[in-house]
Amino acid sequence: MAVCARTPDRKGHTMQLSHRITNITGGGSDGWQVFYKARAMMAAGETVIELTIGEHDIRTAAPILQEMHRAALAGHTGYAAVPGTTALRDTVAARVQARTGVPTTRDNVIITPGGQAGLFATHTATCAPGDTALYIDPYYATYPGTIRGAGAVPQVIRTRADEAFQPRSADIAAHAPGARSLLVNSPNNPTGVVYSRATMEGIAQVCIDHDLWLISDEVYDTQVWEGAHISPRALPGMADRTLVIGSMSKSHAMTGSRVGWIVGPQEAIGHLINLATHTTYGVPGFIQDAACFALSQGDAFEQEIAAPFKRRRAMAQKMIAGQNTVGLIPAQGAMYLMLDIRATGMTGEAFAFDLLEHHKIAVMPGESFGTSAAGHIRVAMTIEDGAFEAALRTVCAHAETLAG
Amino acid sequence: MAVCARTPDRKGHTMQLSHRITNITGGGSDGWQVFYKARAMMAAGETVIELTIGEHDIRTAAPILQEMHRAALAGHTGYAAVPGTTALRDTVAARVQARTGVPTTRDNVIITPGGQAGLFATHTATCAPGDTALYIDPYYATYPGTIRGAGAVPQVIRTRADEAFQPRSADIAAHAPGARSLLVNSPNNPTGVVYSRATMEGIAQVCIDHDLWLISDEVYDTQVWEGAHISPRALPGMADRTLVIGSMSKSHAMTGSRVGWIVGPQEAIGHLINLATHTTYGVPGFIQDAACFALSQGDAFEQEIAAPFKRRRAMAQKMIAGQNTVGLIPAQGAMYLMLDIRATGMTGEAFAFDLLEHHKIAVMPGESFGTSAAGHIRVAMTIEDGAFEAALRTVCAHAETLAG
Repeated sequence: MAVCARTPDRKGHTMQLSHRITNITGGGSDGWQVFYKARAMMAAGETVIELTIGEHDIRTAAPILQEMHRAALAGHTGYAAVPGTTALRDTVAARVQARTGVPTTRDNVIITPGGQAGLFATHTATCAPGDTALYIDPYYATYPGTIRGAGAVPQVIRTRADEAFQPRSADIAAHAPGARSLLVNSPNNPTGVVYSRATMEGIAQVCIDHDLWLISDEVYDTQVWEGAHISPRALPGMADRTLVIGSMSKSHAMTGSRVGWIVGPQEAIGHLINLATHTTYGVPGFIQDAACFALSQGDAFEQEIAAPFKRRRAMAQKMIAGQNTVGLIPAQGAMYLMLDIRATGMTGEAFAFDLLEHHKIAVMPGESFGTSAAGHIRVAMTIEDGAFEAALRTVCAHAETLAG
Repeated sequence: MAVCARTPDRKGHTMQLSHRITNITGGGSDGWQVFYKARAMMAAGETVIELTIGEHDIRTAAPILQEMHRAALAGHTGYAAVPGTTALRDTVAARVQARTGVPTTRDNVIITPGGQAGLFATHTATCAPGDTALYIDPYYATYPGTIRGAGAVPQVIRTRADEAFQPRSADIAAHAPGARSLLVNSPNNPTGVVYSRATMEGIAQVCIDHDLWLISDEVYDTQVWEGAHISPRALPGMADRTLVIGSMSKSHAMTGSRVGWIVGPQEAIGHLINLATHTTYGVPGFIQDAACFALSQGDAFEQEIAAPFKRRRAMAQKMIAGQNTVGLIPAQGAMYLMLDIRATGMTGEAFAFDLLEHHKIAVMPGESFGTSAAGHIRVAMTIEDGAFEAALRTVCAHAETLAG
């Protein structure tokens, strides 16, 4: 997506754009060349098995769409209140309180047009232009660009494959002086790791010691296969310095509806409402009504949405345990597997290109998500079970061939 | 909406937010006290005639909502492409080209979640933090906050009631040195004025002379009662320095659907797509399909949506011509009337409070939109004809009583 920074006009003069936006991708490769190549092959008529993007192989359930339509026909088509509807804010607050034990009311909640809007708003709210914002590598692809787009300076904290990419608090603390915020994501995209209680407590302590805002991206919180999701907002002293990002995208297969939320201290939410008045002006009311309905379906529905990933992850664990070349980073949550293919002697990127060329299977190189997951590939568990099993078998066989 | 800037935590310590967000409303009164008072009266059970907000007295048409539902049920519920669907980008490009004569393709278009998102994105794209962004007074309420939210410094250009609030190019030029952008809005909210060709040509010349980006908010372009809407992008030398904000909100009574666009130079749009990847991650596909359908209904449908305002404006012109106290700023477009009530000796704000107290009619003080429209009130023509006529008659009678 890199384009050049200046726009020629008719006189050969160029109109300059702000460095903040021309530099949003950081100027380097964005690591998605394998993805673009796969899409180009598909556009040219080839059949490619895509294990790249974090999107369900089902669509939004019809009853949710029926409720959306009912609300729209009933007239909920005008400007919705910028903070979100009272009903949805109350529903989110009750859900968060029930799951974390932290007292939460609608005043702690703003509805956003998706989780990405929450990531941008929280960084804009916490960081002044030029402030340092910390994030953990490997990271979801938009993180550094979101920080740059908000005018802040991204500072990455590396992790280690042999520690399952759980960040060390000492590494965070080393970069904390002078920083304003820390962004974490558990269950994690791209690694599939769920941060342990010890990891989260270490993170919380660094935030308290160094007076950081903690921005906690919890959009995979309904997809936990091992252990328990710990929301750091529930740790001692953290409720007033934590901004939690939530979303209906992954939990309810509503990626395209663009509806999520930020939960945090009341006064920060008040300012985030002011910001939303000037950045998005709210979320469609009929979508919020649909989100309310979807949340009212309860845990069973969320487990149903998560079930295919849980099944495929069990299948993958069994398959990978039976061979020697590919390693599996503990797959504790989210819809991804992070596979260690270093035994092939290849980078993740070289392996991914090779796999695409030989088997028309597209995966994401670990290098797409920073440097910590070099020599790995991320496999999205987002195609039906049989095809997924066959594709993963091919991935393992290809790695074994290369490792020779 | 002003809230204080710091969030207390459990230790009595305060978590600081960025000045950019705590200062977004500029720290002063936001001028909406009359509106809030009216809403409070309504919440307490009183009947208030609201002539405050720019929202139709109809809802989004059922066929548009049916198309939205059809698209959703057909499976358009996953992530849509961040730039917008090809179909909607093509439709917007063809529409803009047909109406302005400027060659326009999908590469000149990004779909945004509403016009406000376009205002924020264009200022973020053109202005670095600390850069000066110009805008015209009277202004739509979010303009200065949008500029501040983007980290830029708002600089207002005043206009004069006796020149129908058409900006003088010399006034803009006086503030142009060192500025990066100029935001204009014709047809204008709050004044109802449509900028003349001479005004637009003057604006274009200042932008060329001082190398400014022109951000042209044209969301009322289907509501023109006198003269013609001139898109400054169509003026010589302007296509490569103009970013046009469009929206389905006013033209198709789709305020709550949050769908609009930015039209501009291809490379600027490329960067705006990068920004959108990090701020909103696209617009629901089913809403874009509904927007495509709505645009395909053509001019007749748009005239039908605009017709009530045209009727009420004619009614108002006739009524106001028949009395001596209230003056009408030339009502050339948009869904508002700007009434000069200076003959009462009151400020717009004092008059509006008095009107609310005595007659339970809520209008916006001119002072809500800057300083140039002091001594005026803005009347939204957004209630049914009979009630509108009666309310306007009461407004005039009240002014005459005060002018006594």
